Amino acid sequence: MMFSGEFHYFRVPKSDWRRRLRLWKAAGGTAIATYVPWLIHEPQEGRFDFDLLREFLEVVASEKIGLIVRPGPYQYSELVNDGLPGWLLENYPQILARDKQGRPFRSSSVSYQHPQFLEKVENYFAQVCPILADFTQSRGGPIVCTQADNEVFGVHVWFSGMDYNPETFGFGREDGRYANYLRKRFKTVSTLNRRYGTAHRRFGEFTLTDEPAEGLPAFLWNRDYFDFYTTQGIEYLETLFAMMRRHGLDGPTCHNCATPSMNAWFLGANERLGKNFLLGSDHYYCLDQRWPQNNPTPQYFVRMFCSYEALRMMGNPPTVLEFPFGSSSDFLSPTAQDMTAALYLHLAVGMKGLNGYVLTGGPNVPGTGKNTDLYDYNAPISASGEKRQTYFALKRFGQFLNGHPELVNARPAVDFQILMPWRAARGNAPALPQLRLPGTLQPWELWEDTIQKGLLTAAFADGLLPQFAKDLEQVSQAKPLVVPCDGTMTAAEQRSLLNYVKAGGKVLCLPLLPQYDEDYQPCTILADALGFTTKGIIDLECEPPRINVGPIVNVCCNHGWARTLALPAKVEVLGFDEHSGGAVCVRRPLGKGEFIWLGMSWIYTNREQHQMLAWLLEQLGMKRHLTKDDSVVFCTIRGKHLFACNLTTSPRKVNLTLKNGRQMALRLPPMKVVIETI
Amino acid sequence: MMFSGEFHYFRVPKSDWRRRLRLWKAAGGTAIATYVPWLIHEPQEGRFDFDLLREFLEVVASEKIGLIVRPGPYQYSELVNDGLPGWLLENYPQILARDKQGRPFRSSSVSYQHPQFLEKVENYFAQVCPILADFTQSRGGPIVCTQADNEVFGVHVWFSGMDYNPETFGFGREDGRYANYLRKRFKTVSTLNRRYGTAHRRFGEFTLTDEPAEGLPAFLWNRDYFDFYTTQGIEYLETLFAMMRRHGLDGPTCHNCATPSMNAWFLGANERLGKNFLLGSDHYYCLDQRWPQNNPTPQYFVRMFCSYEALRMMGNPPTVLEFPFGSSSDFLSPTAQDMTAALYLHLAVGMKGLNGYVLTGGPNVPGTGKNTDLYDYNAPISASGEKRQTYFALKRFGQFLNGHPELVNARPAVDFQILMPWRAARGNAPALPQLRLPGTLQPWELWEDTIQKGLLTAAFADGLLPQFAKDLEQVSQAKPLVVPCDGTMTAAEQRSLLNYVKAGGKVLCLPLLPQYDEDYQPCTILADALGFTTKGIIDLECEPPRINVGPIVNVCCNHGWARTLALPAKVEVLGFDEHSGGAVCVRRPLGKGEFIWLGMSWIYTNREQHQMLAWLLEQLGMKRHLTKDDSVVFCTIRGKHLFACNLTTSPRKVNLTLKNGRQMALRLPPMKVVIETI
Repeated sequence: MMFSGEFHYFRVPKSDWRRRLRLWKAAGGTAIATYVPWLIHEPQEGRFDFDLLREFLEVVASEKIGLIVRPGPYQYSELVNDGLPGWLLENYPQILARDKQGRPFRSSSVSYQHPQFLEKVENYFAQVCPILADFTQSRGGPIVCTQADNEVFGVHVWFSGMDYNPETFGFGREDGRYANYLRKRFKTVSTLNRRYGTAHRRFGEFTLTDEPAEGLPAFLWNRDYFDFYTTQGIEYLETLFAMMRRHGLDGPTCHNCATPSMNAWFLGANERLGKNFLLGSDHYYCLDQRWPQNNPTPQYFVRMFCSYEALRMMGNPPTVLEFPFGSSSDFLSPTAQDMTAALYLHLAVGMKGLNGYVLTGGPNVPGTGKNTDLYDYNAPISASGEKRQTYFALKRFGQFLNGHPELVNARPAVDFQILMPWRAARGNAPALPQLRLPGTLQPWELWEDTIQKGLLTAAFADGLLPQFAKDLEQVSQAKPLVVPCDGTMTAAEQRSLLNYVKAGGKVLCLPLLPQYDEDYQPCTILADALGFTTKGIIDLECEPPRINVGPIVNVCCNHGWARTLALPAKVEVLGFDEHSGGAVCVRRPLGKGEFIWLGMSWIYTNREQHQMLAWLLEQLGMKRHLTKDDSVVFCTIRGKHLFACNLTTSPRKVNLTLKNGRQMALRLPPMKVVIETI
Repeated sequence: MMFSGEFHYFRVPKSDWRRRLRLWKAAGGTAIATYVPWLIHEPQEGRFDFDLLREFLEVVASEKIGLIVRPGPYQYSELVNDGLPGWLLENYPQILARDKQGRPFRSSSVSYQHPQFLEKVENYFAQVCPILADFTQSRGGPIVCTQADNEVFGVHVWFSGMDYNPETFGFGREDGRYANYLRKRFKTVSTLNRRYGTAHRRFGEFTLTDEPAEGLPAFLWNRDYFDFYTTQGIEYLETLFAMMRRHGLDGPTCHNCATPSMNAWFLGANERLGKNFLLGSDHYYCLDQRWPQNNPTPQYFVRMFCSYEALRMMGNPPTVLEFPFGSSSDFLSPTAQDMTAALYLHLAVGMKGLNGYVLTGGPNVPGTGKNTDLYDYNAPISASGEKRQTYFALKRFGQFLNGHPELVNARPAVDFQILMPWRAARGNAPALPQLRLPGTLQPWELWEDTIQKGLLTAAFADGLLPQFAKDLEQVSQAKPLVVPCDGTMTAAEQRSLLNYVKAGGKVLCLPLLPQYDEDYQPCTILADALGFTTKGIIDLECEPPRINVGPIVNVCCNHGWARTLALPAKVEVLGFDEHSGGAVCVRRPLGKGEFIWLGMSWIYTNREQHQMLAWLLEQLGMKRHLTKDDSVVFCTIRGKHLFACNLTTSPRKVNLTLKNGRQMALRLPPMKVVIETI
């Protein structure tokens, strides 16, 4: 398990490098990571200065600790211009990212693949990569991994939205990136003309002015552009890695998603960037008072679980590439207790590696600090080199990791599976028009509300252990499968799901049956085969339903879609609305399998909701690994370890019963993850 | 100090009333409060049943505990229809609140002053008020206060926006409520025609279709409508109290603002509703996982401070009318530790009275429970009557209150004052168009960001003790006055402020100098007299400034408005931007006083910000009551009590030095308010 800490040689005083590196090794650290900031090493165009970097690489090599290098071009890191040299932005304004109207976002948001930008990057890489190359593992050096750029897409979407720079994307050119993408994806111009309502003759004629005014065409145009835009971000990484290799730098590569909500934007990156590429994610919970929480919470647990599952399904060992070791804000920076809870919480949801940001800081190079001159970051080792409480917390965690090497390969206990809805997880495309077709949820509502705040929170509240599945081929038929659906599903997916059930699969589909394909064209293959037809919708605001499912009475339906059905034969009603008498949950055997549809979703608030979920999954044969009596304490089992997480400010007592009948009464202090061997 | 708990006789089993009332008295409770739900007492139109209520009133009277009654019409309280009878909504759809297009919001959102609604309310009040009247204090009974309605405006703005019901407001009628309001406020039709760009001849002709399409007229039209709408809410309360009195119910009255962000919507209510009226506010911090925090936080501390200060300046002893004693969500309901911290935090910011929601629950009357059949609410006394940990926490707090009667009249120590910006605090009017005139902030940005997240958070971080002032007449010239300004100020206010300074006042104005009056017409009386002219604005995104103020270097400017000045004579530059050399903070003596303008605002993140604030206030003669070395521990001094609040999950140690030189080293457990006698 990688246990790394960010260590900025350009901030930490040279005289203290070795001592601080040894402090980290003493804490169990197996690696460090560092930016190699362009603005520091090429302060004027063509004038390079790498003395400090070379010296640092020698020291790291001699200290025998792994090194992750992040040579940019971007760093962010609270550096001015996000780490880009001032001369670049002053002298080459054409490289800036631009909105649909052609306006630049801000002075340091660049269009990633602009040829002029890439040329300047290559000039820098041509100098820095050979230096780094001397220290790669293949030559016996410390560099274990090279990251390209930092939090790609961030400097665009946080300040404006997607980039539409015409030179980068070649709008209007037959060989432009945009035309090439459309040609590859849509094959014929006429397909695309039908989709956008255009009358072009060549792919090169498609451009920004095609954007339809409203409705489905506007939605599809913007979603297509988002697909193109994310592909371009991945291509940018590919370009950077190719440059690095051209200049001698080989070995494993990585990139960090800025937040878990962007993980799925990188769908396809692993295929494109090869087996040696690792996609990780940055997992902050509080960088200042504006964050939704000050410390790890059960809500954070669910988000981290989803983040790791998404990374895992793209083919990555779940890794956090920036774990909060502090904050640039002095106010509400993570504390030792928070950090300890967050570290073990990450183990609970399957962490295979961690880089903490930052292990230690120091004075900024004069003129390069954006917020403050001293970059202390409330880090575990302070700017002046003292150990803080967070250092000792890390050291205790490092000792735990050392004592438990089996955790890297520990397999999670799983009660039920969830089919990963990739389109929903990518549903937060910037400025996507809302599409309120009857019988659909917004894709992002499915991901954030139905799945995270509803299904998963209820599952963990009940003590159920979920796991995502990438596709039906990954699924184990021995466990029930939840299929979250926003009302859309490709024809192929609907057929596969039918076949899966017929072959013996047990499926719980919620909260909508697909009525459309992925492009919102009518497609009811699944519903037709099941014989289900929507009869009516209970408007939750106007006629609050009173829903009973199985033995559970008055299940709070606070999110959406209580739907009644016209019922075919062979259907068993499991749940209904007391007021209208309409069925809202039905079961139907099909072939060797079974299909349950629950026509509602919820934000988890009340015990009736998790009781309903557990009862429905038990109808599909679920055999649970544990039961517990405190909905706020979240548990997982990995290998022989039970993790019980109390992410509240109060001590809690939880009584657990394991599958084998063993009973445990755990007393959990506030903000504490307790690990028991089972 | 009122110490009340909500006690629903229609949920708590009758056989357990006395025992639970006595449990509350044993905990120090001095009063209880209850809704008297219309939907329960008039289940069919004209069929009334008050037996249970009468029985309860007798029991309360015999138990000698105060009673706050809340007979509606609305209750909310997780009752179906928000507590309105079903027959009312089914049979009288004309009473519903309507949006600008005439569409009803939802089935249970009523237009408060619709004549048909008020008629039905009066029919109910004619029955219930005489029953309650027999138990008022004036007749030796337990009823100490009567609340009209519940969280007025809530059922409108949470589900749609403001109400535009044409029958209620009489659009198009010369004697309609809307015409009457406009006539009283604007005096002449021509004034209003100029304001809205209309060409009406009579006030009765003004109606919804006048709304200007955009720009300043659209902003003013909507803000005027908001002023009208809030006046109507207050008039509705006046109508209800008059009804109550007509039916014999006398004595003190109250109403609860739904959230602190709505307190200022009730500006004028105290004047209109008389000396016996108390405006309080509801202070929830977590009702379910969707809330921005799960427990009291430093951010919550600042919001509660602002809430109480706003209530106080309207003339009310700061009272929380719904303090969270639990939550209808089973998941993340307040714990005993959270509750204890929140209770003492309220004392720290000046609480004079509290009603907790709810002390105890029980089974809902069949068919009336919206979310669940059992209304347990995780209350201090459970639905089945058991004492929870939160009960014991309340009991300890009750004992503390009993032991410290002096706290009711304890005066706060104050280091500096803030002039209350009422228009900014009302800047969250629903659907108000954005107005981005040069040199202005959105009013709500001033209230939420500049004042709460910036100024106040930095002040408490530094150990400074602020207090709001209603107007310049309330201000003590002995202490510096901060004047937050969004770029607007009436001509009269600008003149008063000038006179205040000339007479010896010390003022720190930020982040904008007024360039407009309250209606965004040019008005530079203050700037002209000072000789200040804005020269330029530093765009924070494109040219991040590097601001030094006095001895403080590189003050993080993360919110807005770094402004440079053309400088007159007699001006001292206190702060400047290193890059441009422009002044961003200047001081000028005027008459016997002094005026400092700081042309930036910030979200509090870094120590340089609070150091700057303290330094500037010290330039204006501030003598501080304490210094401390932990920015996260917030302190206040009330009378002889020092409150030190640790609202984080970690233990903290803070070193304090008091004005008199006394030093204290406090060890604070997580989520704990420590009180020391000084």
